[in-house]
Amino acid sequence: MTQLVRVQNLTVSADGYAAGEGQSLERPFGHADPGELMAWALATASMPGMAGPEGSRGLDDRLVRDFGNGIGAEIMGRNKFSPHRGPWADHAWQGWWGEDPPFHTPVVVMTHHERPSFTLSDTTFHFVSGTPADVLALAFEAAGGRDVRLGGGAQTVRAFLDADLVDQLHVAVSPVVLGGGSRLWVSPAELEDRFHHEEVPSPSGLAVHHLFWRRVSPA
Amino acid sequence: MTQLVRVQNLTVSADGYAAGEGQSLERPFGHADPGELMAWALATASMPGMAGPEGSRGLDDRLVRDFGNGIGAEIMGRNKFSPHRGPWADHAWQGWWGEDPPFHTPVVVMTHHERPSFTLSDTTFHFVSGTPADVLALAFEAAGGRDVRLGGGAQTVRAFLDADLVDQLHVAVSPVVLGGGSRLWVSPAELEDRFHHEEVPSPSGLAVHHLFWRRVSPA
Repeated sequence: MTQLVRVQNLTVSADGYAAGEGQSLERPFGHADPGELMAWALATASMPGMAGPEGSRGLDDRLVRDFGNGIGAEIMGRNKFSPHRGPWADHAWQGWWGEDPPFHTPVVVMTHHERPSFTLSDTTFHFVSGTPADVLALAFEAAGGRDVRLGGGAQTVRAFLDADLVDQLHVAVSPVVLGGGSRLWVSPAELEDRFHHEEVPSPSGLAVHHLFWRRVSPA
Repeated sequence: MTQLVRVQNLTVSADGYAAGEGQSLERPFGHADPGELMAWALATASMPGMAGPEGSRGLDDRLVRDFGNGIGAEIMGRNKFSPHRGPWADHAWQGWWGEDPPFHTPVVVMTHHERPSFTLSDTTFHFVSGTPADVLALAFEAAGGRDVRLGGGAQTVRAFLDADLVDQLHVAVSPVVLGGGSRLWVSPAELEDRFHHEEVPSPSGLAVHHLFWRRVSPA
């Protein structure tokens, strides 16, 4: 089985931003309100720690519960892992996700500033510098034959798209307008030269789902 | 975690039939053409043994690849397992699926005619008589804490719906008209008294997906 690189459940605003401006410890999504941006996912039964059994089990839920399906590792950018910039002052920061992160696989953090790996519950974080292709080679190995989820943020997804290393994307477009921040695209049509594109408005009204897959399979 | 009973990827015709009339060894779907009825799934990358990497990876594919996600056992009716009716002449028949069935979990066959369990690859088939509730109790136990997929056919799904034992359904409606056979419904609206209902036309044009989940969660 070919291992794929998949973007799963990345949410952007109607104007294409995955996060607002001014990320900080208090505001991981900057000026964006994550409760508003991610409302489509937060209302589902499958979103960890949220609505639970009372949550919806329609289309949005199917996409949320596909998050880890067939995935053996995640790649994320340094700015998704941490609000800090530049060299690490120390290694106290262990991510936003508490003692039981929702990844349950190795996570490869792409960063210019390496630091030792550490493990929380069943998630081990590795810190790797290099090109997207270098980082991906490590993630494929860590994934043990399964697919790699490209977890964002927008800058990291853009870097992998520029290197033509993405096989499949699910991007949920929320009706929120942000006006600035970390931008994935001006319009989803930008990807249509390289990807098949399906646009599926959710019956929930909380997002329009965009599904992309490569026009030509990788060799 | 509550274990759920989920119908996944059941395909019916525009007039509600999951199979045609006259099932036989040569025609497991009776007068229905499974290639036409199931065209939406057969075109996807995730359908075992079909299009492979050249297959589509849009909405239809997401639903196909959810087939085994979180599932620990399947319940199927005797008519899904076999073209034979009445008592078993012998135990030579081992299903339609060859040496490596696509279930990869225990399968509980609901039948008035019990026979010994057998295993093919990582799928073990058990044969159980009794009410839907009796059969479900065994399937929940076999599922080891995971959900149970109610695999069909239409008669079996109807029996579980009548017993109010279904938590969630995904039914794909194909544009084919069959005019007779094993019927799930006259109209999907029949389930709306007990289930939330989302209708999602696939961008592929090959099916309209109907997603249902209970209005009230089971205790």
